[in-house]
Amino acid sequence: MQLEKKIIEQHNDGLISGHQKKFDYSAGSVANINNVLAKLAAFQIAIPSWALGTGGTRFGRFSGGGEPRSLEDKMEDIGLLHALNRSSGAISLHIPWDIPKDVQAIKALAAQYDLKFDAVNSNTFQDQPGQQHSYKFGSLQHVDKAVRQQAIDHNIEVIRHGEALGSDSLTVWLADGSCFPGQLNFRKAFQNTLDSLQQIYKALPANWKMFVEYKAFEPNFYSITVGDWGQSLLYATKLGPQAYTLVDLGHHLPNANIEQIVSLLLMEGKLGGFHFNDSKYGDDDLTTGSIKPYQLFLIFNELVDGMDAKGMDHATGLGWMIDASHNVKDPLEDLLQSVEAIMIAYAQALTVDREALNKAQANNDVVACQEILQEAFRTDVRPLVAEARLRAGGALAPVALFRELKVREQLINERGQKTVATGL
Amino acid sequence: MQLEKKIIEQHNDGLISGHQKKFDYSAGSVANINNVLAKLAAFQIAIPSWALGTGGTRFGRFSGGGEPRSLEDKMEDIGLLHALNRSSGAISLHIPWDIPKDVQAIKALAAQYDLKFDAVNSNTFQDQPGQQHSYKFGSLQHVDKAVRQQAIDHNIEVIRHGEALGSDSLTVWLADGSCFPGQLNFRKAFQNTLDSLQQIYKALPANWKMFVEYKAFEPNFYSITVGDWGQSLLYATKLGPQAYTLVDLGHHLPNANIEQIVSLLLMEGKLGGFHFNDSKYGDDDLTTGSIKPYQLFLIFNELVDGMDAKGMDHATGLGWMIDASHNVKDPLEDLLQSVEAIMIAYAQALTVDREALNKAQANNDVVACQEILQEAFRTDVRPLVAEARLRAGGALAPVALFRELKVREQLINERGQKTVATGL
Amino acid sequence: MQLEKKIIEQHNDGLISGHQKKFDYSAGSVANINNVLAKLAAFQIAIPSWALGTGGTRFGRFSGGGEPRSLEDKMEDIGLLHALNRSSGAISLHIPWDIPKDVQAIKALAAQYDLKFDAVNSNTFQDQPGQQHSYKFGSLQHVDKAVRQQAIDHNIEVIRHGEALGSDSLTVWLADGSCFPGQLNFRKAFQNTLDSLQQIYKALPANWKMFVEYKAFEPNFYSITVGDWGQSLLYATKLGPQAYTLVDLGHHLPNANIEQIVSLLLMEGKLGGFHFNDSKYGDDDLTTGSIKPYQLFLIFNELVDGMDAKGMDHATGLGWMIDASHNVKDPLEDLLQSVEAIMIAYAQALTVDREALNKAQANNDVVACQEILQEAFRTDVRPLVAEARLRAGGALAPVALFRELKVREQLINERGQKTVATGL
Amino acid sequence: MQLEKKIIEQHNDGLISGHQKKFDYSAGSVANINNVLAKLAAFQIAIPSWALGTGGTRFGRFSGGGEPRSLEDKMEDIGLLHALNRSSGAISLHIPWDIPKDVQAIKALAAQYDLKFDAVNSNTFQDQPGQQHSYKFGSLQHVDKAVRQQAIDHNIEVIRHGEALGSDSLTVWLADGSCFPGQLNFRKAFQNTLDSLQQIYKALPANWKMFVEYKAFEPNFYSITVGDWGQSLLYATKLGPQAYTLVDLGHHLPNANIEQIVSLLLMEGKLGGFHFNDSKYGDDDLTTGSIKPYQLFLIFNELVDGMDAKGMDHATGLGWMIDASHNVKDPLEDLLQSVEAIMIAYAQALTVDREALNKAQANNDVVACQEILQEAFRTDVRPLVAEARLRAGGALAPVALFRELKVREQLINERGQKTVATGL
Repeated sequence: MQLEKKIIEQHNDGLISGHQKKFDYSAGSVANINNVLAKLAAFQIAIPSWALGTGGTRFGRFSGGGEPRSLEDKMEDIGLLHALNRSSGAISLHIPWDIPKDVQAIKALAAQYDLKFDAVNSNTFQDQPGQQHSYKFGSLQHVDKAVRQQAIDHNIEVIRHGEALGSDSLTVWLADGSCFPGQLNFRKAFQNTLDSLQQIYKALPANWKMFVEYKAFEPNFYSITVGDWGQSLLYATKLGPQAYTLVDLGHHLPNANIEQIVSLLLMEGKLGGFHFNDSKYGDDDLTTGSIKPYQLFLIFNELVDGMDAKGMDHATGLGWMIDASHNVKDPLEDLLQSVEAIMIAYAQALTVDREALNKAQANNDVVACQEILQEAFRTDVRPLVAEARLRAGGALAPVALFRELKVREQLINERGQKTVATGL
Repeated sequence: MQLEKKIIEQHNDGLISGHQKKFDYSAGSVANINNVLAKLAAFQIAIPSWALGTGGTRFGRFSGGGEPRSLEDKMEDIGLLHALNRSSGAISLHIPWDIPKDVQAIKALAAQYDLKFDAVNSNTFQDQPGQQHSYKFGSLQHVDKAVRQQAIDHNIEVIRHGEALGSDSLTVWLADGSCFPGQLNFRKAFQNTLDSLQQIYKALPANWKMFVEYKAFEPNFYSITVGDWGQSLLYATKLGPQAYTLVDLGHHLPNANIEQIVSLLLMEGKLGGFHFNDSKYGDDDLTTGSIKPYQLFLIFNELVDGMDAKGMDHATGLGWMIDASHNVKDPLEDLLQSVEAIMIAYAQALTVDREALNKAQANNDVVACQEILQEAFRTDVRPLVAEARLRAGGALAPVALFRELKVREQLINERGQKTVATGL
Repeated sequence: MQLEKKIIEQHNDGLISGHQKKFDYSAGSVANINNVLAKLAAFQIAIPSWALGTGGTRFGRFSGGGEPRSLEDKMEDIGLLHALNRSSGAISLHIPWDIPKDVQAIKALAAQYDLKFDAVNSNTFQDQPGQQHSYKFGSLQHVDKAVRQQAIDHNIEVIRHGEALGSDSLTVWLADGSCFPGQLNFRKAFQNTLDSLQQIYKALPANWKMFVEYKAFEPNFYSITVGDWGQSLLYATKLGPQAYTLVDLGHHLPNANIEQIVSLLLMEGKLGGFHFNDSKYGDDDLTTGSIKPYQLFLIFNELVDGMDAKGMDHATGLGWMIDASHNVKDPLEDLLQSVEAIMIAYAQALTVDREALNKAQANNDVVACQEILQEAFRTDVRPLVAEARLRAGGALAPVALFRELKVREQLINERGQKTVATGL
Repeated sequence: MQLEKKIIEQHNDGLISGHQKKFDYSAGSVANINNVLAKLAAFQIAIPSWALGTGGTRFGRFSGGGEPRSLEDKMEDIGLLHALNRSSGAISLHIPWDIPKDVQAIKALAAQYDLKFDAVNSNTFQDQPGQQHSYKFGSLQHVDKAVRQQAIDHNIEVIRHGEALGSDSLTVWLADGSCFPGQLNFRKAFQNTLDSLQQIYKALPANWKMFVEYKAFEPNFYSITVGDWGQSLLYATKLGPQAYTLVDLGHHLPNANIEQIVSLLLMEGKLGGFHFNDSKYGDDDLTTGSIKPYQLFLIFNELVDGMDAKGMDHATGLGWMIDASHNVKDPLEDLLQSVEAIMIAYAQALTVDREALNKAQANNDVVACQEILQEAFRTDVRPLVAEARLRAGGALAPVALFRELKVREQLINERGQKTVATGL
């Protein structure tokens, strides 16, 4: 199903007067309101192809109905999201789950839904049927050159698929690591991984970026070979100017100050992209903004400040993607909630009084510094986000409209009650 | 395959002189050596039926060969372990994965392998094919009475299976909880869970114990309805004298002092049993003793001290079970390593100079307190454990013999390369 | 100095029209606005006497000027805060730092500043000059009965001081614990502590409460004898109906779900009071709401729900106190920020649509549950808090007025640049 | 007091036959025993001058008697330790606490006690009496150039003191950071810190090293400007070849894999030195090896492997120092326990069968990898450490001899019951 403009307009008509009042009130206190609205409108968050079905844990998975059965279905789902919120205009493909059979048809479909192809993702954390070598003991780090070569080849193949579709970046997340002390020689694992990444780097088109993602633990539980931002930065620096660090909010040790990491990576010119989600314990992959919304704001505060300092375009300077697992919610509703939370945090960061903040910092006026950030965070910026969405043709209340239209029921009718998304 | 006594004897013959020298040296410094050996020999650690196949994570699973295809195969595997180390003489069944088709045949098989039936485990964290109600939003905590009733009935059925086999305890581990703030009313979830547990409690035979296991997080990532020892103790106290808390080493928040929890639960007469494993980050389910062996010793130190204070029999006073996931090792070798680590920690705890420790504590002589514990921990007690095993008819070097005999290769021949244990 | 009403009125006059517009906008979406305002006005947060000077760490302390030199100065400071925000109308005394020399004069001073005497606090974590026995190895847990008796006597003396002033609760926070494995027999430490608490409990006036505070670690770094809510609840239950658990937000292991703990303690009728602060790593004692404002809201959400379920009066049902350390901010400004953050979280919790939430929970509509909580949290309730303050005679912008009036400069003139508050 | 050789010899005479039996047994299983003993003998761990008095926390300090009153007293204490264990032949000075008044006399005293001068430490985390600018808001990171200059000058002065004494390295530990979101511009704080460090770096003598220590948190509780190894490595790399990272075991987030960090820093040629202690929660500064002895062994396992890979001399290749706080033990006994634990871990690491480990790693034989490490860790190597000490002229049982000789009582007689070490 594809949402007709008229449906969205009818929905908005019913809400417009209430919205207008709120927007007028909110806009009154924002200095550069049109600038803010323009930035909000330009900001697009990619949806990963694996996030459209119900996720699970090692203990089980409770699937929902109407889940996408194919790449085409996944694009249809993201098309729906983007029609509703006008902020999800990109898809991040995972290979081999999403290899297009007909590239031209897929590109046409993307154009129809107004979607771009964001970073492509390789998978060397699972064995695929018929695969020659197993990744049980790692992929790019493996002690056996043949296994490494297989993983290198796979990554290069992923680049080729991405090129065909018009993507311009590769995200490499490695589960490589160890479960027990002594299992790995850390230095050899690092060197093998670096050598492998260098082979892949060589295959990058000139306009491409490579994102080296780090993670503190899971699925290996003693060491991870790209385990923190320091290690990722080491790899990215040794690889060259097209290599960058990718930050996933859930991939840190308890209590890590992620906003500081983000700031320093930006300073070094080595922040490449973001995976949004939220978590309380580990890589919980919960809805963005559902657990620590202030942290999300503080991260965006550093992003805006750091990108502005370098003159980077907010929308295109970094790769923005959700990376979550939807275990107990409808995946599409969940994604709408995540995107909304991201837009709110971004809007709050845009409205921070930076001049006053710089001055307070220069005076070590800690009380004022806190007041300035809290002023932005405590202000209700939802009307700004809604207005930007409205102007871009989206719905004033995406989740509500999704429910009114009984989208899930229609998808179940189309696709069936018991479907499983590829890759889950 | 079943190991013949002769094979073990031959193995031991080749190692006996080396062992004897080490044992003589080690025994020389142990006051009550025969008492220690007797306790070590009596100590049996149950193997859970799900631990015999290769485990995995939500990201994937890399299976090994020759895994058990049935309850009978699982018992054969544990029989092998027990023949090798004489400390694994019990099996903990998981229902519905291990429902015996022929109870008498299974009991005969157990007798043949010298195995007892330890605690039986229910499963309400997954939906089984054909199940009427889903546990997606919990089981014993569920807002819908019909779902709770289904879960209650299942637990009672598990008790009945256990009774038939001669088990005398039920372990209830609940994944129940929530992934997002607001999802649950905590008080109602507690009350529903308590009511459900009370229904199950009523169905307990008079000589049975119910173990209420707690866990800090996973697979729910915001709250768990039996989330820590305090909550488990609340349930167990409200339920009555047959209800106890079960401690799984991996089910705590970072940095928790588990040995103190163990000590207090023992003091309250409410410690019921133990799930052994090890972890660095969360419920990593690694080989026991592979990450924090000193913590394992400190826990046994409290167990020995606390059980002695109550006059409890070490071997039968609590339920002892391994609960681990074998992702990168041969599950049987892994279990041999876990049992060995447990026996070592137990032997170290048995040889602590308690009189001296009590005196040092009474004098606040912290330096001496530490010296006394470290003396026990730094001493190489492996010869004591080996001697106890030898006297009980086990192998001096279980892992080595397992490899010499090419047990895994034989199991693959028997069962095939691609088998998957039920429940995995 | 004492703030004249006229000064506050002048301040408010200048801000009233802006405020009125905001309040009208905000109040429009609140169903029972007068009820909410009345509850906000009634809510008073006690200020501890030790929070009025600059705090520090073991590495050092950087004092500010004009700090209170006496109990009278401390009351003057809290009087200033209360005049500004009308929500700080109570003082929590720490003995022996704040023993009044002239009880009647102190009571008169309290009346003058409109302050009540909240919970009194004992101190057995330091040795006072001339003290017979040292608390180096604990107080109520100590292996030596004479030390325990000294600590018991001190606590009873604290009760007597509290009685004289009109307080009705005693907070017992114990640093007791151990720094090294083996140092303590956990069971004996528990029993000694329980016995000591029972002696103190017997000395409680009939209308008094005893708050047993727990803490995960620091200043002992291996075990704490009242280490978590489960232990505190054990003590409180064994002590009797006048004993309660006190929750300090910073006294938990990483990632603890504090709101669930709060909910269950309320359910058990054993939650006694609260120490507010915020933290990222440990007991950081930062300004309340400065790090995890959503968690603060979630806690208040449970408090409101749980107290309402029991028909408890919000303002008087529990003890509310700030417990923070002001290392880099002016302590008075810092306290104004903390109180504001608490009032905001309370106001958000009061405006949660509980009927809708109950319904969504009953339907396992997790998306809606989240939307309902986020609706309350994302709404800007500051105008409600300000209106309640205005109606009670407080300042619309307390921090700003504090600065305009150059309060700190005046205090420095009065008290001097280099003063040190007693107890710091 | 200075221990006469004869006293140690008498002590050893009484224990020699028991020791000899144990050593013979232990040495039998070590291939290159003389090599191991030589390495153990050469290994010296510096004692910091601040570790000789009783430490404390922000909550209080319970001092002991006979604490050193001067630099001379501190050197006397370390001389005693070194006489007992022959492994503490270096002192690490802290400026301004330990500025020598007479350099030649101090050097002569060091020669008399056989002590070297290890890294000198600056202090910009406290304000000293009479200091012009305060470090309340940082030192090398400060927004005010004048404050930075003062801190730079102080560090250079520390280098000059170190030069005079024959030290060859400077340890820079910075408390710089922030307590609240917004307080700092992270990038400016980094740049200011880097600029300041560059000024200090320029003042380094050609043969000197600069150690840039990192710490996750405390005494700042939101961000630390040299907060993790990644940041420290960034600074050290930008500074140049004389700058290195220093690892303190207690300065990490929960669950960090420190041994992997150590391995990678060694690989990069940027590991400079070590601060030994142990911890359960944060920077608890407990006795080394008292909480996580297996982690200590795993770290030494990486150190030995990584230093051997680079051909580095174990004894001189890195700076080795204890950095602990002795709150509840006699500081000298505590230090003897720490040094013993370090020597044990080192000895275990030296006896790992590296050839077998490399082979098992190459085969992904995870079971064998674990067995090999556990074989080394479970073996009782204390007789090897004692033998090395014996041959070097130390005591077989240092703590026991310290007590027999009533050293503390003598120090109290000399120095008095109530002394406070400078810097505490």
